[in-house]
Amino acid sequence: MNFPALKNDRLLRAARGEEVDKIPVWIMRQAGRYLPEFRDLRQKYDFFTMCQTPALAAEVSIQPIQRFDLDACIIFSDILVIPQALGVHVEMKPSVGPVLEPLVEPEDITKLEVPVNVNEKLGYVAEAITLTRHKLEGKVPLIGFSGAPWTLMAYMIEGGGSKTLSKAKAWLYKYPDASKKLLTILTDAVVDYMIMQAAAGAQLLQLFESNAEYLGPDLFCKFALPYIRDICKRVKTGCASVGVGNIPMTIFAKGAHYALEELSGSGYDVVGIDWTVDPTEARNKTGGTVTLQGNLDPCALYSPPEQLKRLASEMVQKFGKTKYIANLGHGIYPDVDPAHVKILIDAIHDVK
Amino acid sequence: MNFPALKNDRLLRAARGEEVDKIPVWIMRQAGRYLPEFRDLRQKYDFFTMCQTPALAAEVSIQPIQRFDLDACIIFSDILVIPQALGVHVEMKPSVGPVLEPLVEPEDITKLEVPVNVNEKLGYVAEAITLTRHKLEGKVPLIGFSGAPWTLMAYMIEGGGSKTLSKAKAWLYKYPDASKKLLTILTDAVVDYMIMQAAAGAQLLQLFESNAEYLGPDLFCKFALPYIRDICKRVKTGCASVGVGNIPMTIFAKGAHYALEELSGSGYDVVGIDWTVDPTEARNKTGGTVTLQGNLDPCALYSPPEQLKRLASEMVQKFGKTKYIANLGHGIYPDVDPAHVKILIDAIHDVK
Repeated sequence: MNFPALKNDRLLRAARGEEVDKIPVWIMRQAGRYLPEFRDLRQKYDFFTMCQTPALAAEVSIQPIQRFDLDACIIFSDILVIPQALGVHVEMKPSVGPVLEPLVEPEDITKLEVPVNVNEKLGYVAEAITLTRHKLEGKVPLIGFSGAPWTLMAYMIEGGGSKTLSKAKAWLYKYPDASKKLLTILTDAVVDYMIMQAAAGAQLLQLFESNAEYLGPDLFCKFALPYIRDICKRVKTGCASVGVGNIPMTIFAKGAHYALEELSGSGYDVVGIDWTVDPTEARNKTGGTVTLQGNLDPCALYSPPEQLKRLASEMVQKFGKTKYIANLGHGIYPDVDPAHVKILIDAIHDVK
Repeated sequence: MNFPALKNDRLLRAARGEEVDKIPVWIMRQAGRYLPEFRDLRQKYDFFTMCQTPALAAEVSIQPIQRFDLDACIIFSDILVIPQALGVHVEMKPSVGPVLEPLVEPEDITKLEVPVNVNEKLGYVAEAITLTRHKLEGKVPLIGFSGAPWTLMAYMIEGGGSKTLSKAKAWLYKYPDASKKLLTILTDAVVDYMIMQAAAGAQLLQLFESNAEYLGPDLFCKFALPYIRDICKRVKTGCASVGVGNIPMTIFAKGAHYALEELSGSGYDVVGIDWTVDPTEARNKTGGTVTLQGNLDPCALYSPPEQLKRLASEMVQKFGKTKYIANLGHGIYPDVDPAHVKILIDAIHDVK
């Protein structure tokens, strides 16, 4: 595809465990509502129109790269494109969040349109990735991503966000077989989707298990971890077979403090952690085998500048400079001052 | 007050680390919407009217004791009675939850009516406790409770529930001194409130730090733990000075997996844990010094009976039979079948 040569490979080097001149930093949801230029565009277009229009998705993905000295770009999209590809109606309602036509009973699984042809249904993501990669001119690597099966299943059963995920978790207790069937359908779609993203130009792939925090060790090991593992294995094999081998992969299971050992042995190069986990403890639990990513409290960005710099520097002291990618412990909040994002990025890069 | 003699002291024995014939079990929010008899009464009265009317609060508190073989009764009330006592308007809106007149700026702290005379403002809770204790006829001990300062502060700033608590957490980063001032005001009120409950007849006191899950180790150790510790010390001293010494105390900091060591050394007799923490790990971290309480996933109650029995028994195997109080890892959900609550209680008591 004649992509421009990569000029900043800190993210990829750190993901592979290699030495870096400076600590790579990017921010989950960096293409988002805290940026006025994002909000301007968002006023004109519906959320999913932005995802589905490669030129818009590319523009929005690159906005934070034009403004900040970030070490990675992440494609603008949403984890709920997978349920959409399975035929589920999904809308993004302002100040409510995503609203999905919910699966109520196990029989509803039969309504899903499977198998998914991801090239047909989600080809717009591949196009957006290829376009963004060209537009980036090799400045920084491009990250592709997907939601993980349990997280997607939870949205599909709850029909949107929920404080407890009690409907989705009820499935795990009441209908374990149907749950596994649904998780397998989602796994198959995610595998094809991530391979497609790599083939289109994504240089690192991150899997978001955002709803891990609602599970405990037992449910996670039964209904999340096996699919997370399977995805890594199959995506790596699949990428190699389409000639884009050796793509690093990241797993970020928010709230899975109880499964850091398991996650570090699940095949991923990078394990993301949230701010409730102490970096020193995360290093101990993951035994130095993987690169860690995270984990500043998103609310730390509300701090006055000097305090923010101190918090960033203390975080790096705990993680250490190698096998480390700096990030927040979750997506950035819409009311953060962009000037504070710059302060954070510079503080990370300034660490000697 | 001539309270009837206590016939079942399993809860208190377990809290003190003594041997028990059967494992004591109670359920957070056991006086709640999953019971048809509760919903019947709730249809006739506003939520806070029920809290403020001792006869109603007592009736509702005793409902689950009449139905199940529980080892404790907890007084029906709400953690938000403390903000109310400080002059904050609080309403419970159906299908929304609590709505408070929020504190927006640090100056708003001056609007709070301090110091609180808890006997005057919250005397109805004391009355409800005394009445309930008599009505229980010594069947089981009565638990009093309060919200912990950080949890109350978060509600007061957010003005209700929130997915991120980003407004309240912003205070911790931006206004640490004002935050500590507010937390101190709340601590003083909570101390008096808990002593009043003990003097009125509560036989164990539980402090709920329900919003601990939004903090990480650093914020928790700065803005939650010192107040939690202080409350324990002052309540125990205060109880002794009003002649109700030796009342066991429980701290339940939901989501504080990162601070179990600290909590186990904070003076409380019992540490409650949520279902994301493996009981074996909790025992290791707390070093056998405290009694543990918890931690079945509330959604486990959706399981078919045999599976529920197995889950309960597996939980007990991990905690062990001594220094243990069985409970859920959070409050019971409104759509749970009461028949499953009976199955759980019997399964716990059946453990040999």
